[in-house]
Amino acid sequence: RVNGDRLWDMLMDMAKIGPGIAGGNNRQTLTDADGEGRHLFKRWCEAAGMTVGTDRMGTMFATREGSDPDALPVYVGSHLDTQPTGGKYDGVLGVLAGLEVVRSMNDLGIKTKHPIVVTNWANEEGARFAPAMLASGVFAGIHTLDYAYARRDPEGKTYGDELKRIGWLGDEEVGARKMHAYFEYHIEQGPILEAEDKQIGVVTHCQGLWWLEFTLTGKEAHTGSTPMDMRVNAGLAFGRIMEKVQEIAMAEQPGAVAGVGQAFFTPNSRNVLPGKVVFTVDLRTPSQEKLDRMRAKIEASAIEVCEPLGVGCSVEAVGHFDPVTFDPTLVDRVRDAAEKLGYSHMNIISGAGHDACWAAKLAPTTMIMCPCVGGLSHNEAEEISKDWAAAGCDVLFHAVVETAEI
Amino acid sequence: RVNGDRLWDMLMDMAKIGPGIAGGNNRQTLTDADGEGRHLFKRWCEAAGMTVGTDRMGTMFATREGSDPDALPVYVGSHLDTQPTGGKYDGVLGVLAGLEVVRSMNDLGIKTKHPIVVTNWANEEGARFAPAMLASGVFAGIHTLDYAYARRDPEGKTYGDELKRIGWLGDEEVGARKMHAYFEYHIEQGPILEAEDKQIGVVTHCQGLWWLEFTLTGKEAHTGSTPMDMRVNAGLAFGRIMEKVQEIAMAEQPGAVAGVGQAFFTPNSRNVLPGKVVFTVDLRTPSQEKLDRMRAKIEASAIEVCEPLGVGCSVEAVGHFDPVTFDPTLVDRVRDAAEKLGYSHMNIISGAGHDACWAAKLAPTTMIMCPCVGGLSHNEAEEISKDWAAAGCDVLFHAVVETAEI
Ligand SMILES: NC(=O)NCCC(=O)O
Ligand SMILES: NC(=O)NCCC(=O)O
Repeated sequence: RVNGDRLWDMLMDMAKIGPGIAGGNNRQTLTDADGEGRHLFKRWCEAAGMTVGTDRMGTMFATREGSDPDALPVYVGSHLDTQPTGGKYDGVLGVLAGLEVVRSMNDLGIKTKHPIVVTNWANEEGARFAPAMLASGVFAGIHTLDYAYARRDPEGKTYGDELKRIGWLGDEEVGARKMHAYFEYHIEQGPILEAEDKQIGVVTHCQGLWWLEFTLTGKEAHTGSTPMDMRVNAGLAFGRIMEKVQEIAMAEQPGAVAGVGQAFFTPNSRNVLPGKVVFTVDLRTPSQEKLDRMRAKIEASAIEVCEPLGVGCSVEAVGHFDPVTFDPTLVDRVRDAAEKLGYSHMNIISGAGHDACWAAKLAPTTMIMCPCVGGLSHNEAEEISKDWAAAGCDVLFHAVVETAEI
Repeated sequence: RVNGDRLWDMLMDMAKIGPGIAGGNNRQTLTDADGEGRHLFKRWCEAAGMTVGTDRMGTMFATREGSDPDALPVYVGSHLDTQPTGGKYDGVLGVLAGLEVVRSMNDLGIKTKHPIVVTNWANEEGARFAPAMLASGVFAGIHTLDYAYARRDPEGKTYGDELKRIGWLGDEEVGARKMHAYFEYHIEQGPILEAEDKQIGVVTHCQGLWWLEFTLTGKEAHTGSTPMDMRVNAGLAFGRIMEKVQEIAMAEQPGAVAGVGQAFFTPNSRNVLPGKVVFTVDLRTPSQEKLDRMRAKIEASAIEVCEPLGVGCSVEAVGHFDPVTFDPTLVDRVRDAAEKLGYSHMNIISGAGHDACWAAKLAPTTMIMCPCVGGLSHNEAEEISKDWAAAGCDVLFHAVVETAEI
């Protein structure tokens, strides 16, 4: 078994960097706080005898050597970046649990044939720079480096410039590393495991996603002196589209979600009808067929809403991944480990996207999940128990050691 | 007749300060650009022989002396501040036309019994600091100075601090001045005069207003892993309320408007259902009865929308004025002046709020309007012709001189 107290202490120490306003964290990608968190992680890795490399996307790789110089490494990872009002565990747990696995191996004098590489993927959240899972996406050849460097935050700063600014532009070519396998341990971010009273989620699939960024063009005009019938009201169109998105998701139940998290009114003045409304629909489902159908329905109904209002409507897909099926052998290995360790478990589909979704394109991949209180995540009040954290880390430890071969 | 070219040149010179991004202006209240615009106006006033005083709200008063030391001044004014993406004429025309009236009186050697005071009311727009017409509201005793100083812009800066920062905190007690009469000349900001092919709007009334700022409280949660039936979706509630606002306004046609210009999602991240949505409904109508009814209906329907969604809903009135009836004698005087000068004219109700609405509480007050192209205002593309500007200024000149008594 791993050292659950030590894992918890690392989680609490990391949470001190980039504190939020309500007990959680704001350690967004490529902020100063992100840089500081990386330094702490690097010090811990080096203290555990690992060497740390960084690639040109800023992803960190901490290597524990294996005994066979020709054996490809087993990767274990997740991300240290957070949402603007994020929790202390989303992503962080997976990275620090990887480190705890290595520390436990050190304690127990375990040597493996395959190296172990604990990974901190850059910009998993996509909150500051869309899309999410950006660095793992470049690693997997989904995006080019140029595309990634050109991503802009809401203030217009680019990924490339900010990566340099915080001093974490590495020299490794992105994606040059080859993987024997990839494991990611993460909090569920949903309510199922807690409701079913299970300690371990054996993740079999991940749902697919579209982020559809709509730009509605209305006519900036005075709210007081512009008669109702002369308005080209992009705000009203936005409201109607939100209702349609809801209807479309409800029509695909169970197993589909859609909603709007981000919206910008321009000029955003109380007495000006908006000339522009930009917002993103986030839609997800594990079914490829539903994913395509929902996207088509949402785009069509947006146009249907806008046309009679005279509002212009354009859409850009700013994030996308297809549904993922994880590697059956590794999935079984995770289930077996939970069983052997006496932890209650169930199969589960990941509702959120993870770097594992891109890693799955490169190597046998799977995930492990632990419950979180009330299913709450992307909220500073996100919470897990020390025991939950440790149980999943135990399972990770066993699955990783088995895969890396003693 | 006034000098229309000179008026136009002043308008164009002022428009160089705080240029917008699309041909208009961004000279918001208490910005550096606002400070610069004030200096230019002051220099022009002094060159025209006036003395300029400033009150503790930052309102500027440029006085042309009258012949009777006991006679109260005739005030002429409007505002030099603009929307973030505002036009070159909204407000500015009324201030500079006041100055042109004085310059024409100087040219013609006209002496009046009553002094003339050209006024630049501070923070008319209310875009940066709600409510609109803030300084004239304090002047009329509607708001306290403390209330006004504590108003905050979206960055959290207060009116009081920003007024000091730009160096335009005056020493005059706000509202100490007494008025013989108040005139305000303004662009219509609506489509009626142009559609009816009239040069002059004789403004008989101004519609009343409520700015209702709603705060909707949802539950910040992951857009991917939070099932539809576990969402407390403040964004969806916002969308539905916008639809209700539209329905309520349409049910009160003709003679009522309502819409949403400003909205903020928190944390405004693509993969987080908003924990909070704050937005303002702007509703207006010339009928006191409709004004009260619409407010009640909108507040009730917001609660009706939010309750089944579990979304919290609170509302604060951040702006209000009742419908205004302008002084019949001055209204007739404006109409007579237009008639005498041979300008086409019609009665009109102001759709927008103006400092004249508060001045009307203190002294006989009225307004004059000129058309604007396509009824467009609160838009950088706002446009008027030099002839339109000059015609209204002629009418203002005659009405003011008659009221100030030669
Ligand atoms: N796990 C997680 O929250 N990732 C962010 C990408 C997503 O929105 O799913
Ligand atoms: N005239 C004008 O646009 N005033 C701003 C206050 C309002 O919204 O009516």
